[in-house]
Amino acid sequence: MPASIGSPLANVDAACAPTFADVLAAAARLAGRAHVTPVLRSRTLDALGGATLHFKCENLQRAGAFKFRGAANAVNALTDAAAAHGVVTHSSGNHGAALALAARERGIPAHVVVPEGAIPAKLAAIQAYGATLHYCAPTMAAREEACARVQAATGATLVHPFADPLVIAGQGTAALELLAQAGPLDAVLTPIGGGGLVCGTALAVAARGDGARVLAAEPAGADEAYRSLQAGHRVTDGPRDTICDGLRGTIADINFAMLRAHGVGILRVDDAATRAAQALIAERLKLVVEPSSAIVLAAVLGDPARFAGMRLGLILSGGNVA
Amino acid sequence: MPASIGSPLANVDAACAPTFADVLAAAARLAGRAHVTPVLRSRTLDALGGATLHFKCENLQRAGAFKFRGAANAVNALTDAAAAHGVVTHSSGNHGAALALAARERGIPAHVVVPEGAIPAKLAAIQAYGATLHYCAPTMAAREEACARVQAATGATLVHPFADPLVIAGQGTAALELLAQAGPLDAVLTPIGGGGLVCGTALAVAARGDGARVLAAEPAGADEAYRSLQAGHRVTDGPRDTICDGLRGTIADINFAMLRAHGVGILRVDDAATRAAQALIAERLKLVVEPSSAIVLAAVLGDPARFAGMRLGLILSGGNVA
Repeated sequence: MPASIGSPLANVDAACAPTFADVLAAAARLAGRAHVTPVLRSRTLDALGGATLHFKCENLQRAGAFKFRGAANAVNALTDAAAAHGVVTHSSGNHGAALALAARERGIPAHVVVPEGAIPAKLAAIQAYGATLHYCAPTMAAREEACARVQAATGATLVHPFADPLVIAGQGTAALELLAQAGPLDAVLTPIGGGGLVCGTALAVAARGDGARVLAAEPAGADEAYRSLQAGHRVTDGPRDTICDGLRGTIADINFAMLRAHGVGILRVDDAATRAAQALIAERLKLVVEPSSAIVLAAVLGDPARFAGMRLGLILSGGNVA
Repeated sequence: MPASIGSPLANVDAACAPTFADVLAAAARLAGRAHVTPVLRSRTLDALGGATLHFKCENLQRAGAFKFRGAANAVNALTDAAAAHGVVTHSSGNHGAALALAARERGIPAHVVVPEGAIPAKLAAIQAYGATLHYCAPTMAAREEACARVQAATGATLVHPFADPLVIAGQGTAALELLAQAGPLDAVLTPIGGGGLVCGTALAVAARGDGARVLAAEPAGADEAYRSLQAGHRVTDGPRDTICDGLRGTIADINFAMLRAHGVGILRVDDAATRAAQALIAERLKLVVEPSSAIVLAAVLGDPARFAGMRLGLILSGGNVA
């Protein structure tokens, strides 16, 4: 059921939750800015999975991940007056780089709060796109506090990595393209970390997916979204034991509510299966992807009975590996 | 000057040399059989090269290389009567796998003569597509003799990896697509081994390239094509010292004549530069490519003055690495 028609989103501020109209607005805003990424096929992987697999290659997106969609949507939705003060976020990974690139293209400052101990290659990418780095202790509280300090000092607009409605709507444009490129699908699979991608995907699929299901693959060692849905309330105390460095986040309230409203199913995947899927993607699709992307193929290969004969869309979320 | 209008191809059997009409016929034959591969861009690589780079991703082609175009064109041009006897070739690499796949799809036998000592992973790929392997000693004479024996025993049609006019015409469809996808280009670069890809490319560019040049990148340690053009006759006694395992072939008479007729320039590239380009392609384009593909980017980065400000098409020929 689409979020735009109401009651299932009772727990979410109605003025805040994005709708399919926001996804369409994002698509218009991103035209000419983001790549329309290709959808690749492999008959060998189809045979292996016993299903028809359509891989949406967001690893080929600008800055190497779907994150550019949400970041560029948020940056380009700002008024000139707000934009002049710049944008700020906390992210040690793809969202930080994506926001830095989107801000540079609009010609405005970007501030990225990064926890000490973050991967140097990812920090270098953020700096290469011209953002100012602000270091903080590696806790969520320290990150949010540092963000607030930057906002107070500069007037920059916060662009949250996965809870911002404009970010969620922007991420939904990947599935919107996928549905147009691949034709009818039985299900669309995305990874889930903070939940921005899967929530945007749910909006697009509810409106244009003709009954397709939305499923999210989550590392078994960092399965807060799964446990949150089981518990019926948001769980935020889970372990973070996974090679999927993009999927260690905690979902926010808005993401939790949208997951429930759209009936998104969560599939837990062991890291070993994700590693094997990453190798298969390099060998058969000739693509470099992050473990956080390969997890969707691992989810399909790990449950062949469930997916037998289906037409599936798999969003390969990014390709930024060290 | 296009091969189809004559005199520069005086050394080639005129009934044998393919023309642009053959490239168009191949494109029609391949529609729905071969992938229309995407053209990718990277602003970072553009900045590094000082040029506008359009990467034609034949590593994403079926069976992992442009070779499927030529092989499928040859296989599907056969009459039913000829096809029933199957096809044969000698190739330890991508052409063997491509021919095996094309034959399997037409439902006819494929025989592939492979030299002892060939890479096991590549042989496994050929077998996985259902071809019969025939081992021989690792010399060109032994390969041709083994091919002739298979032909005599089975009546199979020989599909030569790079001298067959149907193969050359098929390979030309990659550049035909590239020109339609990328818009006007100043030059198109391909790797050169036996010369099938570059000769097909020359046909397409002569007809549709609006004055674009065709350039071929050749390993400095296996530079027979370069030395052949310098000498004015075909040189076949060169060293084969390169990591580019797809580019160790010797050009045939038809390829030599077409290179001269079309004024193709050869750029020699050291393996170290090719390795660095391969890493850049993984990092920035998120693509797995063979060294034999990465050589075209190395050629551009190695001569920035020559390419400054140009719009370039680069054919990434394949992605089959161990």
